[in-house]
Amino acid sequence: MRMYDLIMKKRGGGALSAEEIDYMISEYTQNRIPDYQMSAMMMAVYFRGMNEEETAALTMAMARSGDMLDLSAVDGIKVDKHSTGGVGDKTSIALAPMAAACGVKIAKMSGRGLGHTGGTIDKLESFKGFTTGITAEHFISQVNNIGISIMGQTLDIAPADKKLYALRDVTATVDNMSLIASSIMSKKLASGADAIVLDVKTGSGAFMKKEEDAFALAREMTALGKSVGKNMTAIVSDMDQPLGLAVGNALEVKEAIETLQGRGPADFTKLCITLGTYMVMAGGKAGSMEEAESMLREVIENGKALNKLAEFVEAQGGDKRAVYDTSLLPQATIVEEIISEKEGYVNHISCDEIGICSLILGGGRETKESEIDLSVGLVLHKKVGDHVKAGESLAAIHANDRAKLEAARERFLAAYTISDTAPAPSELIKGILR
Amino acid sequence: MRMYDLIMKKRGGGALSAEEIDYMISEYTQNRIPDYQMSAMMMAVYFRGMNEEETAALTMAMARSGDMLDLSAVDGIKVDKHSTGGVGDKTSIALAPMAAACGVKIAKMSGRGLGHTGGTIDKLESFKGFTTGITAEHFISQVNNIGISIMGQTLDIAPADKKLYALRDVTATVDNMSLIASSIMSKKLASGADAIVLDVKTGSGAFMKKEEDAFALAREMTALGKSVGKNMTAIVSDMDQPLGLAVGNALEVKEAIETLQGRGPADFTKLCITLGTYMVMAGGKAGSMEEAESMLREVIENGKALNKLAEFVEAQGGDKRAVYDTSLLPQATIVEEIISEKEGYVNHISCDEIGICSLILGGGRETKESEIDLSVGLVLHKKVGDHVKAGESLAAIHANDRAKLEAARERFLAAYTISDTAPAPSELIKGILR
Repeated sequence: MRMYDLIMKKRGGGALSAEEIDYMISEYTQNRIPDYQMSAMMMAVYFRGMNEEETAALTMAMARSGDMLDLSAVDGIKVDKHSTGGVGDKTSIALAPMAAACGVKIAKMSGRGLGHTGGTIDKLESFKGFTTGITAEHFISQVNNIGISIMGQTLDIAPADKKLYALRDVTATVDNMSLIASSIMSKKLASGADAIVLDVKTGSGAFMKKEEDAFALAREMTALGKSVGKNMTAIVSDMDQPLGLAVGNALEVKEAIETLQGRGPADFTKLCITLGTYMVMAGGKAGSMEEAESMLREVIENGKALNKLAEFVEAQGGDKRAVYDTSLLPQATIVEEIISEKEGYVNHISCDEIGICSLILGGGRETKESEIDLSVGLVLHKKVGDHVKAGESLAAIHANDRAKLEAARERFLAAYTISDTAPAPSELIKGILR
Repeated sequence: MRMYDLIMKKRGGGALSAEEIDYMISEYTQNRIPDYQMSAMMMAVYFRGMNEEETAALTMAMARSGDMLDLSAVDGIKVDKHSTGGVGDKTSIALAPMAAACGVKIAKMSGRGLGHTGGTIDKLESFKGFTTGITAEHFISQVNNIGISIMGQTLDIAPADKKLYALRDVTATVDNMSLIASSIMSKKLASGADAIVLDVKTGSGAFMKKEEDAFALAREMTALGKSVGKNMTAIVSDMDQPLGLAVGNALEVKEAIETLQGRGPADFTKLCITLGTYMVMAGGKAGSMEEAESMLREVIENGKALNKLAEFVEAQGGDKRAVYDTSLLPQATIVEEIISEKEGYVNHISCDEIGICSLILGGGRETKESEIDLSVGLVLHKKVGDHVKAGESLAAIHANDRAKLEAARERFLAAYTISDTAPAPSELIKGILR
């Protein structure tokens, strides 16, 4: 088999066989196919596409390229949840304890953030002492004992995807649906869960700006998971403005805690309940959607979800007192309001820009090596559709540096579009695919 | 400027500016753009194409990437001739002295052969002592003195093309018309001629198998040359069977000499006269096509063309006696006839295969480092349309090795298709573009 012939075949619109894709991925991972051939192939794939069988073969080949997490030692159905990422997306921190409190086994691998969207692990490190650098044995026994664990990507999961993504990133071959879907799903399939609930974001703060693209990606990923026997659900949800009100690591943890106390923002709470319902169903813990939903509402009301978060934080070395007293979370030294000069309705928020404000304040990583400031960020007071008076505050800004605060404030104000008429209302949940 | 953005632009179907193309080629030549980005770009170009302006900018950028031959010290109009290559293509060896004998200044750079089509320089080395490894000064003074010189590619001509072609060759991005045309023309434009006559081959022994592709390439190259002020002519000619009868270095030189003596094969003579007519016109040596043609026929009849070849060979260190006594050219030790078992009409000759027979005998290079045997090859007795009886010879095979001879004979017989009915006649000259 020669890579040249495979490029030629794909260039001509042909479909690669599973054997050919296995060869390509295995040789590339072992540096026996050069980058310049793979990038030509990726560009040919961009123009010619891949069919369902090719995408499934690519996903499996990448999933098998490194370590595969074996969760067979965990009793019961393992449910994983994955978000394509967005601004203010603290979902896992509230949702995982909620689902675990309903008896669902949560064995999740998570990553750190890069760019303007934060990572779950960074956020969890707001609990002093908390670590995700645990062994696979610790991870599995913790899931068996308390029903929940989140592990950092310490294993060599899907190295082919890592290598291929880095190449696609510099050769303008990222945005092909089959390649995006296989990249995400290869990591999920190597992580060993039985059921996967996907939260596919769409809008100005998401990777998929257009709703139709988000649905296409959701379809591609659910088909991929199903083709290898996984129980799949995908929710397409709004990311045209930040999720909830808090943006920034410790601020988002605080909001997740408030949500577990039943006093979180309406949109964020709704998303957690919706995703949670499918997780509880997939985990076989409820007989109907109604039952699943009422179970989730109950573990919020009776405090079991909050206690599960505390248990989880403690099991991974964190200071669980902060769950019950959020003043123990990292706090910024300066808190100032961002005052609107205009009066009117918030018509649009450039969601990416709000993420960048948090990055400017020091809350995100510009490169892999950056240190992040967990305490900084923003708490919005006004979201799309809200009326605002001149002189009223749009948000509170939490900072540790005056110059950064001013830069973020300027950027923040430019991200808000305030007009005389109210915008048409927009749905948080755009659709659900199973 | 970032290569990533240029790839993205081309991927989206945009046209690159001359400035962007200059940047890309200059940075790539200096190894500041990696191969994997350039191969992604080339694949995007394959799918999106390049318009006339882009192709011209690419050609000029590659032409300027290394040395440019300055022929201003040569008096008069310098005419170059280029063939896209084929089997038995000894045209330059007869044509260059013919045109020079008519007063046209021939200052030509030539290459060695690779694969199954031979190079002009290899063929000329059949004259003992002949060298193309001359200095630019020698080259120019020789053209001024005797009107003709052929120089090897000793200068660093179009290194960007060399690097880019090597990359395209392994990434399945060779066959795009703009890229092929710019590759050829960048070298021609760096070689300094005022007028260029192109011989674009088509058929089973040519790079362009289909006639429409050959015409497209001819159009692209003439447009390119004209856009930078060159006097351009392109002839599309048949390469569906070998040109003339001889295939193999010294055998082809012998046939070129016979052609200069007025007793060459009809097809080869016709091609030389046709190309020569346009060269004489482009060189300003005749007032009409008819005059140019009769001048060419005259220098054959009065022996001036043959004497010009001898003069040229001598000026570059070769033994000119072989021009008048071809038995002094390298001779093979074994000469055998290839006998046809069938009776009928030759309907088709797999032209590439005849080239490969010569390669098998030792007459070509499989890799750049191969030594070649100048004496071996084939002399066809039967071409397409000819009738052949069982027991009659199809060709004489010239070899120095019995095993190679047998391998070549078997391959040769398989390359001939002999049927009961005669094929439709085919034109040697498919068309002329100016």
